[in-house]
Amino acid sequence: MPSGAPEREALREAGGGEGLYGLTTALLRAVGEALERGDEARLRELIAPLHAADLADLIERLRGDERHRLVAMAGAIVSGEVFAFIEDDVREAIIRQLDSRDVAAAISDLDTDDAVAVIEDLDPPQQREILDALPDRADRFGVAESLSYPENSAGRLMQREFISLPAFWTVGQTIDFMREAEDLPHDFYEIFVVNPRQEPIGTVPLNSLLRTRRPVRLRDIMGEELHVIAAETDQEEVGYLFDQYDLISAPVVGASGRLIGVITVDDVLDVAREEAEEDIFRLGGVPEADIYRAALQTAGGRFIWLLVNLATAILASFVIYQFEGTIDQMVALAVLMPIVASMGGNAGTQTLTVAVRAIATKDLTVGSIRRVLGKETIVGLLNGIVFAVLTGGVAAAWYGNPALGYVVGGAMIINMLVAGMFGLIIPVVLWRLRIDPATAAGVLLTTVTDVIGFLAFLGLAGMFLL
Amino acid sequence: MPSGAPEREALREAGGGEGLYGLTTALLRAVGEALERGDEARLRELIAPLHAADLADLIERLRGDERHRLVAMAGAIVSGEVFAFIEDDVREAIIRQLDSRDVAAAISDLDTDDAVAVIEDLDPPQQREILDALPDRADRFGVAESLSYPENSAGRLMQREFISLPAFWTVGQTIDFMREAEDLPHDFYEIFVVNPRQEPIGTVPLNSLLRTRRPVRLRDIMGEELHVIAAETDQEEVGYLFDQYDLISAPVVGASGRLIGVITVDDVLDVAREEAEEDIFRLGGVPEADIYRAALQTAGGRFIWLLVNLATAILASFVIYQFEGTIDQMVALAVLMPIVASMGGNAGTQTLTVAVRAIATKDLTVGSIRRVLGKETIVGLLNGIVFAVLTGGVAAAWYGNPALGYVVGGAMIINMLVAGMFGLIIPVVLWRLRIDPATAAGVLLTTVTDVIGFLAFLGLAGMFLL
Repeated sequence: MPSGAPEREALREAGGGEGLYGLTTALLRAVGEALERGDEARLRELIAPLHAADLADLIERLRGDERHRLVAMAGAIVSGEVFAFIEDDVREAIIRQLDSRDVAAAISDLDTDDAVAVIEDLDPPQQREILDALPDRADRFGVAESLSYPENSAGRLMQREFISLPAFWTVGQTIDFMREAEDLPHDFYEIFVVNPRQEPIGTVPLNSLLRTRRPVRLRDIMGEELHVIAAETDQEEVGYLFDQYDLISAPVVGASGRLIGVITVDDVLDVAREEAEEDIFRLGGVPEADIYRAALQTAGGRFIWLLVNLATAILASFVIYQFEGTIDQMVALAVLMPIVASMGGNAGTQTLTVAVRAIATKDLTVGSIRRVLGKETIVGLLNGIVFAVLTGGVAAAWYGNPALGYVVGGAMIINMLVAGMFGLIIPVVLWRLRIDPATAAGVLLTTVTDVIGFLAFLGLAGMFLL
Repeated sequence: MPSGAPEREALREAGGGEGLYGLTTALLRAVGEALERGDEARLRELIAPLHAADLADLIERLRGDERHRLVAMAGAIVSGEVFAFIEDDVREAIIRQLDSRDVAAAISDLDTDDAVAVIEDLDPPQQREILDALPDRADRFGVAESLSYPENSAGRLMQREFISLPAFWTVGQTIDFMREAEDLPHDFYEIFVVNPRQEPIGTVPLNSLLRTRRPVRLRDIMGEELHVIAAETDQEEVGYLFDQYDLISAPVVGASGRLIGVITVDDVLDVAREEAEEDIFRLGGVPEADIYRAALQTAGGRFIWLLVNLATAILASFVIYQFEGTIDQMVALAVLMPIVASMGGNAGTQTLTVAVRAIATKDLTVGSIRRVLGKETIVGLLNGIVFAVLTGGVAAAWYGNPALGYVVGGAMIINMLVAGMFGLIIPVVLWRLRIDPATAAGVLLTTVTDVIGFLAFLGLAGMFLL
């Protein structure tokens, strides 16, 4: 048992209420104190027993100056695996602090997919330096070739470490080969069967290999249902494929159809989380996870979205401006108009959320757009009528003016109908234009619902109330 | 090659532009026509070659009456695996149409986790009926016991089919055992090593079993780093554990510490998607994915959220109502007030989105709340100042009234500062109260930003402009 472990148990107990596994507030505090005192022995004692994923979390949670001190004091403990688990921004800061040779040494133990993930976001010169410092020539070539595929493609996600064998090999030969081979992947779950052109033709899960007698040929036990992925395929597509068919790993082929790598489900789990997170952030108008960023960068990152929003808010104000005369005659309109706009915005956001998600999961297809549009129009109309009655009733009672109630109700129906339609139309149009539907859809939608909401309400009021 | 396959290839080509794998618009249309004509042979020819996941998608995409006819014509083709892939609402409709014995026969081939997933949402009497009809007594017991664990717990996710062996067994014994055993799980990636009390003490990935010589004992090759999951653990926690440590499978233990099941990564991939989706839907104010629901149910499902929103919109209107006199004196206020409210809402939503996600990924912990609150306050203040200058400048120029610009700017700073703080405080308070932070946070937040936005703007205007 590594030294420090029992004490870590105690620390874990103390801070266990947070539901974190390897990491606790108490441990974080102890590490902070060791860093403060410059007590290297104590620091190593505390972090040595941590799982790479937990050490990565710990490093993420430190303040910038603490992190710098930790790397200076115990940089060698930051293994390739820790790098692979760490968040991009933080990783870059650490790599900048380390010697390229140390980074290269650390990542040379990783499978290609993880090595690529560690260095893909660095500046080209730094990337070059680390690549050149990789001790193994084959690694150098493999990582460089993976980097030649587009960002977020299968070529970046795949590892080049896999086992491919000809169909005529027997189970016995295969097992003997694996017992003797030196350079096997760290983890693998199936063996690929290839033809003489190195194209994948079948797959043998390890458990069927183990269950089968030695003289049987791979050809006779291999599964022929292959989900072959081209190296250029986008990772979102890869995630969909794994999710759809419950895959554990899948072969990746180059342009010639030759097997060049394998993607495993653990990478896809990360992708699934990232892609869903991306949708969440885009819908919320945040460029990315910025919880570990400093305040100034965070404010800067969020600025653009707010600026776009200011432009659309001013546009909506301009609509109101056209009706200043109307409002001047009946100030109740100013009181009630935000209700109509807000309900349209919310109803539209509901449709938008469902549509963005359905596009991502391929539940919304070109063939079903018309049907879904028809449905969303009806949904908008139904809820429009219900809320027209409710809001109109409230308004009429509030101001003792039935006509005002009718105008509120009429504007509500119009705006919720439009909201339902545009909640679908906007993301679909963005999607067909190959723009991510989550990015700009929200702001476009609220522009529509604000403008239509104010226009319908103040317009109807001008016509029927004054 | 199954009949119909080449034709399906052609169909796939025709509709392949949508990026769907097994399913195309052309195939959907052909199935629709076969259903229309009642051509059972053609129907079977079309759907027989489909992967279970694709057949599930096809069934989901049919209209209610078509679906009914398909099950009536070719119900036997709906295997247990298809049931496992199908979406809840649709599955229930189909099960209602089928005989309990047929459902039982279909799911008896599944691992317990999938069988549980198929029947867990049914009414208790129907569940009972299907359970009783399960041909295998052990299955019946296993599924019933899994159902005794809370919904969304590890006990529901786990499969009871796994291999556990004592540490003194050799690799050779293990391989021979697996070659002879009849009742092995469908897919598995590691073997669990247990002590005489059946508690898990180690794990042997299949690839190390294959790489090791026959006389070696499991004790000598097993990994001791176990991530043991209690059966009551919530699935969100399970997902976090798999994601954090890149697990491929993990042992589940009962209250006594005895190994009772195993959770595999494919189940967790589903959970990860579901949980992220849940956050997306809750943030968007939609109860759940309703793309396959009829319009009336969809409208009903979304009604409650809109009703809550109406209440808060009326509350905000009530604030404006208090300032009717002020607006009456200066109608420009009605034109500009939505800008202040809207910017606060958007800035707050940014913070809220990051906070909700950080709580889910455990990047926000009790220990870091104060630090993040400090940061969000600064971010709110920074962007508040920038947008105060921008919006104040626009307002002052628009109306040629510098004082109006100062009032807009002052209100903007106040509202964006409050928005940043409450964007964090609201989800954190909900989280500590054990309410899902994504659910109610959005509506609470916009209530705050609308009320504060109108109050600050109209209040300052009343004090300094009139």
